[in-house]
Amino acid sequence: MAEKVEYFPGIGKIQYCPDAPPTETLCFKYYNPSEVILGKPMSDWLRFSVVFWHTFRGTGLDPFGAPTLSRAWNRPAETVDDAKRRLNAAFEFFTKLGVQFYTFHDRDIAPEGASLAETNANLEAVVEHALELQQRTGVQLLWATCNLFSNPRYMHGAATSPLAEVFAYAGAQVKKGLEVAKKLGALNYVFWGGREGYASLLNTRLREELDHMANFFRMVVAYKKKIGFTGQLLIEPKPKEPTSHQYDYDAMTVIGFLRTYGLQEEFKLNIEPNHTTLAGHCHEHDIAMASAFGCLGSVDANTGSPELGWDTDQFPMSVRDCTAVMRYVLAQGGLAPGGLNFDCKVRRESTSLTDMFAAHIGAMDTFARGLRCAAKMQQDGVLDGLVATRYASYRDSELGRSIADGTATLESLEAHILKHGEPEVPSGQQETFELIFNRYL
Amino acid sequence: MAEKVEYFPGIGKIQYCPDAPPTETLCFKYYNPSEVILGKPMSDWLRFSVVFWHTFRGTGLDPFGAPTLSRAWNRPAETVDDAKRRLNAAFEFFTKLGVQFYTFHDRDIAPEGASLAETNANLEAVVEHALELQQRTGVQLLWATCNLFSNPRYMHGAATSPLAEVFAYAGAQVKKGLEVAKKLGALNYVFWGGREGYASLLNTRLREELDHMANFFRMVVAYKKKIGFTGQLLIEPKPKEPTSHQYDYDAMTVIGFLRTYGLQEEFKLNIEPNHTTLAGHCHEHDIAMASAFGCLGSVDANTGSPELGWDTDQFPMSVRDCTAVMRYVLAQGGLAPGGLNFDCKVRRESTSLTDMFAAHIGAMDTFARGLRCAAKMQQDGVLDGLVATRYASYRDSELGRSIADGTATLESLEAHILKHGEPEVPSGQQETFELIFNRYL
Amino acid sequence: MAEKVEYFPGIGKIQYCPDAPPTETLCFKYYNPSEVILGKPMSDWLRFSVVFWHTFRGTGLDPFGAPTLSRAWNRPAETVDDAKRRLNAAFEFFTKLGVQFYTFHDRDIAPEGASLAETNANLEAVVEHALELQQRTGVQLLWATCNLFSNPRYMHGAATSPLAEVFAYAGAQVKKGLEVAKKLGALNYVFWGGREGYASLLNTRLREELDHMANFFRMVVAYKKKIGFTGQLLIEPKPKEPTSHQYDYDAMTVIGFLRTYGLQEEFKLNIEPNHTTLAGHCHEHDIAMASAFGCLGSVDANTGSPELGWDTDQFPMSVRDCTAVMRYVLAQGGLAPGGLNFDCKVRRESTSLTDMFAAHIGAMDTFARGLRCAAKMQQDGVLDGLVATRYASYRDSELGRSIADGTATLESLEAHILKHGEPEVPSGQQETFELIFNRYL
Amino acid sequence: MAEKVEYFPGIGKIQYCPDAPPTETLCFKYYNPSEVILGKPMSDWLRFSVVFWHTFRGTGLDPFGAPTLSRAWNRPAETVDDAKRRLNAAFEFFTKLGVQFYTFHDRDIAPEGASLAETNANLEAVVEHALELQQRTGVQLLWATCNLFSNPRYMHGAATSPLAEVFAYAGAQVKKGLEVAKKLGALNYVFWGGREGYASLLNTRLREELDHMANFFRMVVAYKKKIGFTGQLLIEPKPKEPTSHQYDYDAMTVIGFLRTYGLQEEFKLNIEPNHTTLAGHCHEHDIAMASAFGCLGSVDANTGSPELGWDTDQFPMSVRDCTAVMRYVLAQGGLAPGGLNFDCKVRRESTSLTDMFAAHIGAMDTFARGLRCAAKMQQDGVLDGLVATRYASYRDSELGRSIADGTATLESLEAHILKHGEPEVPSGQQETFELIFNRYL
Repeated sequence: MAEKVEYFPGIGKIQYCPDAPPTETLCFKYYNPSEVILGKPMSDWLRFSVVFWHTFRGTGLDPFGAPTLSRAWNRPAETVDDAKRRLNAAFEFFTKLGVQFYTFHDRDIAPEGASLAETNANLEAVVEHALELQQRTGVQLLWATCNLFSNPRYMHGAATSPLAEVFAYAGAQVKKGLEVAKKLGALNYVFWGGREGYASLLNTRLREELDHMANFFRMVVAYKKKIGFTGQLLIEPKPKEPTSHQYDYDAMTVIGFLRTYGLQEEFKLNIEPNHTTLAGHCHEHDIAMASAFGCLGSVDANTGSPELGWDTDQFPMSVRDCTAVMRYVLAQGGLAPGGLNFDCKVRRESTSLTDMFAAHIGAMDTFARGLRCAAKMQQDGVLDGLVATRYASYRDSELGRSIADGTATLESLEAHILKHGEPEVPSGQQETFELIFNRYL
Repeated sequence: MAEKVEYFPGIGKIQYCPDAPPTETLCFKYYNPSEVILGKPMSDWLRFSVVFWHTFRGTGLDPFGAPTLSRAWNRPAETVDDAKRRLNAAFEFFTKLGVQFYTFHDRDIAPEGASLAETNANLEAVVEHALELQQRTGVQLLWATCNLFSNPRYMHGAATSPLAEVFAYAGAQVKKGLEVAKKLGALNYVFWGGREGYASLLNTRLREELDHMANFFRMVVAYKKKIGFTGQLLIEPKPKEPTSHQYDYDAMTVIGFLRTYGLQEEFKLNIEPNHTTLAGHCHEHDIAMASAFGCLGSVDANTGSPELGWDTDQFPMSVRDCTAVMRYVLAQGGLAPGGLNFDCKVRRESTSLTDMFAAHIGAMDTFARGLRCAAKMQQDGVLDGLVATRYASYRDSELGRSIADGTATLESLEAHILKHGEPEVPSGQQETFELIFNRYL
Repeated sequence: MAEKVEYFPGIGKIQYCPDAPPTETLCFKYYNPSEVILGKPMSDWLRFSVVFWHTFRGTGLDPFGAPTLSRAWNRPAETVDDAKRRLNAAFEFFTKLGVQFYTFHDRDIAPEGASLAETNANLEAVVEHALELQQRTGVQLLWATCNLFSNPRYMHGAATSPLAEVFAYAGAQVKKGLEVAKKLGALNYVFWGGREGYASLLNTRLREELDHMANFFRMVVAYKKKIGFTGQLLIEPKPKEPTSHQYDYDAMTVIGFLRTYGLQEEFKLNIEPNHTTLAGHCHEHDIAMASAFGCLGSVDANTGSPELGWDTDQFPMSVRDCTAVMRYVLAQGGLAPGGLNFDCKVRRESTSLTDMFAAHIGAMDTFARGLRCAAKMQQDGVLDGLVATRYASYRDSELGRSIADGTATLESLEAHILKHGEPEVPSGQQETFELIFNRYL
Repeated sequence: MAEKVEYFPGIGKIQYCPDAPPTETLCFKYYNPSEVILGKPMSDWLRFSVVFWHTFRGTGLDPFGAPTLSRAWNRPAETVDDAKRRLNAAFEFFTKLGVQFYTFHDRDIAPEGASLAETNANLEAVVEHALELQQRTGVQLLWATCNLFSNPRYMHGAATSPLAEVFAYAGAQVKKGLEVAKKLGALNYVFWGGREGYASLLNTRLREELDHMANFFRMVVAYKKKIGFTGQLLIEPKPKEPTSHQYDYDAMTVIGFLRTYGLQEEFKLNIEPNHTTLAGHCHEHDIAMASAFGCLGSVDANTGSPELGWDTDQFPMSVRDCTAVMRYVLAQGGLAPGGLNFDCKVRRESTSLTDMFAAHIGAMDTFARGLRCAAKMQQDGVLDGLVATRYASYRDSELGRSIADGTATLESLEAHILKHGEPEVPSGQQETFELIFNRYL
């Protein structure tokens, strides 16, 4: 059994201290979980979750450098006991930080064995320990996922591998993953198709790979139902990296894929803004799109640096961006059973344990500010009112209603214009929208 | 009636002269329309088309500079007769260049009047002239389209305008556009939603706009059927510019949109590689994707500069890229009723009439080289054979067939892996594919 | 003489109203020109300037659409009287808005004539009027510049044109420009080399063009001294657009160019953040770089959209970005004789006169917030202190001092390491810096 | 001593077989080292070099996946004998491939020890072995370099670290590196400042770091002279990755830096096109720029994928790009003492030993085609002639000569224009240049 150690010595539970000076990093200035905002405690709107992989398995390794992060819970050896010790550290962190949720990949929490059977046995042993820690602390599993991209067998893809044997391995792995998710009461289950795409078109059959991917998801749905796992299935879009092209490019691509293959009732989306910006959109675009189509399931709350062309998974520190995100979350009544999962890593130069806290506190506070600002905007109703006015003609005129309900025809439209002539087109007032938005920040 | 003038004095019909020295710009070195390639004359594979807008309405204006291109057919005044004169110049060019097709927007070929009725009358008059020129020269209309983005009324969008009146105007305009297309025997009809998107999310209702756009397309389909227009409807994706986000972002987005709204039987795609690269994909990605889903209808054959973030509409001059495109065209048996439409403009510094010829000749020759290379690749079958081997397990093994036909389950997959263990994963051989591809160039 | 008209009817002088509700767009909530910040009135730190070109010559034209902005001062005809009328409108705007500065290109304010002599005469006439308006209102000319990119003669460049005649024309134009700047008491004179670069390397001689550009600047310096113009000369970097490559790529490129050609004493930089981000840097990078080399002369205060690859010239509305900029401005003691010039345009969909005010008010307020935040940061000294600690070893240790003053050698460094062994490297604390920075916003 | 093993069993020396079918991957079709081109054997123009790091230390590890490349010479243990064995494999590869040069970082070829002294001893032992292998095979060391970015001590930079101790360590390491370079007769010595830049401006002092970097280079120059190392010093620009901003952004930035700090006589540039494109330029831009300023010292011959925002280090397989590069190399009379160094890695999915050969053969053949095309262009002189005509006015007219030699003044230029009026500006003919260029490919 893993030993009892304090991994974050001298750090107590993080408090809400609204009057602390700006430089006080180990307290919340804006995040007050119990404060009621628009009828719900803040913690209901901000279902924060810590990721296991970056935060407890991250080493600071990058393509140009060796590990920089030396953590007591990362011993060189890699046994089931090591894995339990690491989980202890994680739950100590979750508890001190005061988050309600965490997430993991199967291979983050337990070591692989020499065979699938052995790997599964390792996983089961660690999952027992996780269950005990969940029960002891009340921390819940926001979602589980399978790592179908790190093992060399998946180098050409998993569900889209050109090799049936690899597809089969992925299926076997996800079968276990769903069982684990059920056992731990995971609220969701995520698919990020890290290598479901191509490195080169020259050696790739696009359609065949996509058809296989759809079949894979159908098998997942069937097994989920069979074992009675009730968590929400989520797909996480990303445009590229490590592949040259990833099939789940962005929200609309995934929505289209799901509808093309008749899977739209079974899956929602897990949106990561850093992936959204890599796909060439603004920070909140995919959140807006997914929400518009009723399938915003969860958010991997992070950010990138716009000048960089790869996934940096930075902690979200922009009040503007977090406000923009929270407007959509508020408008759809919240994210549950999803949440705001910090798929972020401290910079590899941020080597102290305190940095782990500062990073999460900074992000949680920023989202709390975003929530407060967005709530005030919604209550005042000014921006929403301006938008409603912009689109009023589809409600207030017979012409508009005939367009909205699809009864208009090109002939009826032409008749209207021939009779009424050139329309008057008002200003879009973008800068005014920006000015008003800003005054709530 | 427009006067008889020679607009390209001293330039005769462009010939195929394979032995001309490299510097001889006014002849073809590779494009020989009548040469038979894979059972069809080259001109059947390479259905070249000249665009009216860039090539006959372009002035060299850019956001930082005044017009640079002074053309005899662009007089300051703007009457129906001016429009006919311009058409004469265009048909002289088509004929001397030896292309079989051309394309236009409604507003390119005829001037707008003070009212829709007057505008339509102008258009009808010019269309009569175009029909006569088509009949006289044998040049066909590859596709027509309506310009729903230049007039200020469309500044917030056309089918996605927040104003019902503007939607109605767009409908009226497209009604006429379809009638014109029918009259001129257009083989296709294109929708490029230049402003169907948003400038700012703050003042935009995404879902409502997309629902309206779908209704618009339904009205188009209904009217097309009503008047018996038999051309193929095409949607042209572009990710952004002039908007911050355009709804028809890329091929997969449009395919998903069509299936979401049940329009997939009525529309195919017109792919422009310069738009593809702006969406973050490699040059031929959307061509490959559209072809994989059976909806590659036509190609706007152009290119961009990868270091520039806007649409430069350059003439395609890369043998590698044109070969990559032609491989997909060959594999699907050709593009008809679509074609290779040069949606390209000479640089604003390329001010002489000869530049117009050199640009098209250079591009046609490059595509002819691409066709020759791709045909040789297909005949030899080496690359296709390597790809088939990569995916053979889905055909040759019971496991693979059960995945491909969807009868596998997560349980059957797990059972397979528990029995057979770790799969062996061969090399993807990307560099070898590249080396072999290169040796055909 | 231009008639007396009120161009912004019903709009009075914009007031500072800190308690106005968030939605009150036509007042300042944060910008209070007379409030003293760090010993100077806010208006001394925030030397706001309105640009003539976008704001009074902009039409909303874009590469895909016709003009959308209909302004009373933009009549179709183009005479000296029209030009004076337009200036009247501008000064009414400056005054109502309460800015102290404006900027123009020579060709913005006066029409070109049939010859250079006639053009110069037009310019002189308008300049007389401008002088009168300046004297009447107290508004000053922050900087003048010559438009050396719009006229077709400059399509291949001005000082870098392959044609000596075009170089000569540019020289003649700048001669007049400097005279005008002197007459109007311009505080600075800017060079933005819009077409000083290349469209294609194939037809370009890089070194020859750069040598000519240096000679051009030498002639400018000589003439400036000759006529006794005392304004600061500024070069404005931009990486590309309209060219494929612009020689003044970014701050470091220009600093290197100036030093390569011995011009570093005569020129400073005018930094535009939208250009900085197009060059692949973060928003404030070039401001930081220019300031670090003592040559931050002025700022074109605008922003872009990171997902777009072209210059959008948006009004700066990010509190975070403006705070970051103002930290450098404060650290160097201000920008004078430079300023914060709004090289911004209202979106082409923002068609009302009120939008012009809302846009500037929004931006001025955002900068005022940035100033307040940055001043508080500087006063508290926490961030600066953390940075000083990071670099302390270059001050506090003999080793560090020997490096800083250049007396160390590779041998002395090796001796030190062989003796003292592996250094201890502390955390970079990026997230903590971000958290603290955020708490000042 | 390392054992005698054949690491590439069954693979003999690669031959030139111009008539081999396109699919024959293990032979050269275009590269014939002894063939004379423009008076020199091909191998003199194409001084190919293999990199040790990617090709013999690469494992296929990426940020999302475990190593995929299993090589006989990469045993888990890491001793000096392992290092020698690896070198044996490398020299077997160099010899069979037929390249004349190789390159390494100090830490690639020998393991680090517990102290600098021990590390240096390891390095010396391996260097002895390398010298022996060089002498036995005739393969030369094109350049050596120090890895100043992988060890965690360098996470904040080396010469630009905020810690003097780390600067000292870098100095000590480079001291040894120069000694090794001298011992092995390295023709050049390269500095790639992988972490000489910043992750965040918030915690960075730009100017202080740049001043330190300059001092570092001055110490290098002094020590180089002291020990009599005669190799050329080279700096390799890169804009970012792993840093957010790297100080050696691109060629012009480095040229400017060198001149700012008076180092321009001592350093040339090593240009890597994949870095160039990440900086927002076209493939050959930095090669053109460096060559124009007389400081193109060597080329890291690779390429990227324009749709990806990170350094992919792909093998150069574009005939067009390699031709463009070779034009500049021919124009400056060759690269010696530099060369064409394949800073490339096989894709992590290219797992077989044959892929290593196919990749290099493909790239060498592509460069050989580029050389042949470029040589033909130069011999014919057509493109060069067109360019000369474009710039003729600076030679053929008095006006032009006065500009070129700097004797013109703004007054003389104005006088010329007032007398001669508007210049006539000919077409830039970009498409014609492209067409002609293409016909040589």
